[in-house]
This record gives sequence, C-alpha cells and structure tokens, in this order.
Amino acid sequence: MFEGPIQRLIDEFSRLPGVGRKSAQRLAFHLLNLELVDAKRLAQAIIDVKEQIGLCHRCYNMTSSDECTICRDVRRETALVCVVERAQEIAVIEATQEFRGRYHVLGGALSPIDGIGPGQLTIDALRRRVETEGIIEIIVATNPTIEGDTTAMYLARELKPLGVTVTRLASGLPVGGDLDYADTLTLGRALSGRNEM
Amino acid sequence: MFEGPIQRLIDEFSRLPGVGRKSAQRLAFHLLNLELVDAKRLAQAIIDVKEQIGLCHRCYNMTSSDECTICRDVRRETALVCVVERAQEIAVIEATQEFRGRYHVLGGALSPIDGIGPGQLTIDALRRRVETEGIIEIIVATNPTIEGDTTAMYLARELKPLGVTVTRLASGLPVGGDLDYADTLTLGRALSGRNEM
Repeated sequence: MFEGPIQRLIDEFSRLPGVGRKSAQRLAFHLLNLELVDAKRLAQAIIDVKEQIGLCHRCYNMTSSDECTICRDVRRETALVCVVERAQEIAVIEATQEFRGRYHVLGGALSPIDGIGPGQLTIDALRRRVETEGIIEIIVATNPTIEGDTTAMYLARELKPLGVTVTRLASGLPVGGDLDYADTLTLGRALSGRNEM
Repeated sequence: MFEGPIQRLIDEFSRLPGVGRKSAQRLAFHLLNLELVDAKRLAQAIIDVKEQIGLCHRCYNMTSSDECTICRDVRRETALVCVVERAQEIAVIEATQEFRGRYHVLGGALSPIDGIGPGQLTIDALRRRVETEGIIEIIVATNPTIEGDTTAMYLARELKPLGVTVTRLASGLPVGGDLDYADTLTLGRALSGRNEM
C-alpha cells in the first residue's frame, strides 16, 4: 500500500509488542514528520542498547559493565537476594523502596509445556551464589502464575537444603482494590494467606 | 533508574505519540531481548524512511521519487482531486476503493490559534493545479472538525471562482453505529444533511 521504505518501517513497528497495524502506521508517519536528527537519535539509541548492554556476571540484570549498578553498590545488603523472572521486574521492586538487598534474574519461569526446564534458567548460578555469597534469605518474586508458583516451589526445594531461608511475595487483594472486583483465585489466596490482627 | 543506554532508549520511545512511560519500558526491554540483526533492521528502517522519502512535487504525498505512485499512475482520473490534511489519510481513502482520482495533501488545516494560515498550507500549489491540470471537481476530505470545516469553506471560496466544482465528504452517523451512542453534533449533522429516500 505505502511506498517501500514507509511500508518497511510500518512492518518493523508492527513486530513490536502491543503495536497494532494502525499504531505502527501512526508511528511511521510521526517519524516521517520528525527532523532527521531526531529520527537518527532514536535509531542510534536502538543500536546502542544492543551493542552496549549485556548481562551482569553476578545477577543477570542488564548492565553496560561486568556487574550491574545494584551489585556494585556497596550499601546494598548482600545477605538478601530477591529472585525475579525478568530484568525489567527489578525496576518495579526498586520503586517500592522497600528492598535493599541484591537481585537474581532467572530469565523466565519453569514451563514444561514451553520446554523451559531448570537448565534454561539461571538456577545453577543462583545455587552457586547461595553457596559462596553468605546469603541468608532468598525472596522469590516470580509472577503469581502457575509457572511462577512452580518455579518458586522448585527453588525452595533446591535451595533450602543449602541452609538458606526461602520466602515468597504475598498474594492477595491489591491495595486500594475493591472486594467486588477481585477474581476468585486472588480472593482465595487472600483468604488462605490471611494474617492475625 | 536504568543504566544509561536503556534509559536513553526508554526516553526516545516515550517521545513517540501514544507511547507512555510503561509502554516505552516494555518496548526497550523487548529490543534488548531481540537479536542484534533484528534491532539493527528496525534502526535502519527508521533512517531509510527519513533519507529516502520526500514529498511528491505535484500533490505533496510521501514518495521516494519526484512524483508519488498515485500521480504517476496513468489509470487515475486527473480531473478529480481529493484534498486531505495529511498524507496518511490517503491510505484510508484508498482502502475504500471508491475513489479513482488524484490527491492533494494540504499539510494541515487552517487554525488561526496555532498560527496556521493559508501560507503554511499547500493551497497556492492546489490553486495552480486547478488552473493548469483541467481539474473538474475538488473533493475536500479535511477532518470534520472546526479547523477542517474552516479549511473546506476557505478552499470553496478560493477555488470556485476558477470554475471548478468543490464538494465535501458527508458528515453523519457512522455505518453500523448505534443512534444511542451518537454524539449530538454528529446527530445534528446527520439531520441537517438528511437525504430523501
């Protein structure tokens, strides 16, 4: 429909998550109306991120150095490690300002259906960290899904014998939420995880 | 929050229309997980579109040549010209397969508040086309907004003295829509533009 370069850009944008054909078209025409220097800055940012960002040798967070900024930060507690599925989830936990330990990025969750077993995740590296870094508690912050729960249970079974405490983020009603709108699974979790007042 | 290259990419994505902070983050991490070759293809598509696409000398549509594919197409009726505000609107009209004439892209709509007068649009070029191309009818397809209506009225006043018929797209109820959900302005237009059956 559109001339070559325009259609190719629309196709590229359409491949991005959450970008439909119509949004891709809007983005492409927005870029056409940008100054060349601004479009080039976006293109360069895309290339830079791929060429400069790798994985932290310790925790598998994204970083432009050998170790990520969190692992290098001497003020963080090294005895406390929060395990997440993906690096982007670190930002969400950091935003709470409630956690001052380090992280460990699994690279996903166990999912036999998708062929993801322990060998596809960074579980061996986590075990070595538990054995060598003096870690006292592992907080498992995998998603509250079947895969995330399975992974949490697997980690608890694997790591507890090494003498470390393994905990899991609480599931329950979202703060500010309405009981009427809670799904039954969440409400069930909130009930079984109820706390004495 | 994120390391330099990641944050810069998130910032660049945030500048795009309809991309919030959270979507920008999701896009950035998606790119981090892409193969380098795929990320580079997106970056190159952005640069290509800026370096290869210019404006059609006749109708101001986007093109990689002097004239756009529509103006070059000898099967199009040259006596019929559809005037749109922006080049991307051509695709929407082409999709109807109801129009076989050529186009003219104004580059926007008259808007005194935003400082957009006739001189900022390609109205002079349109006038020259009417004078030289044997055009019989100008279909004004500017948006059904105050600015689009103002522009349509201005074009009618300017072009009709040159002996050309100036028409406007019909406003009214969207096909398949529900009268209950029509806003009063649209309903008003549908009423005043009613057709005898």
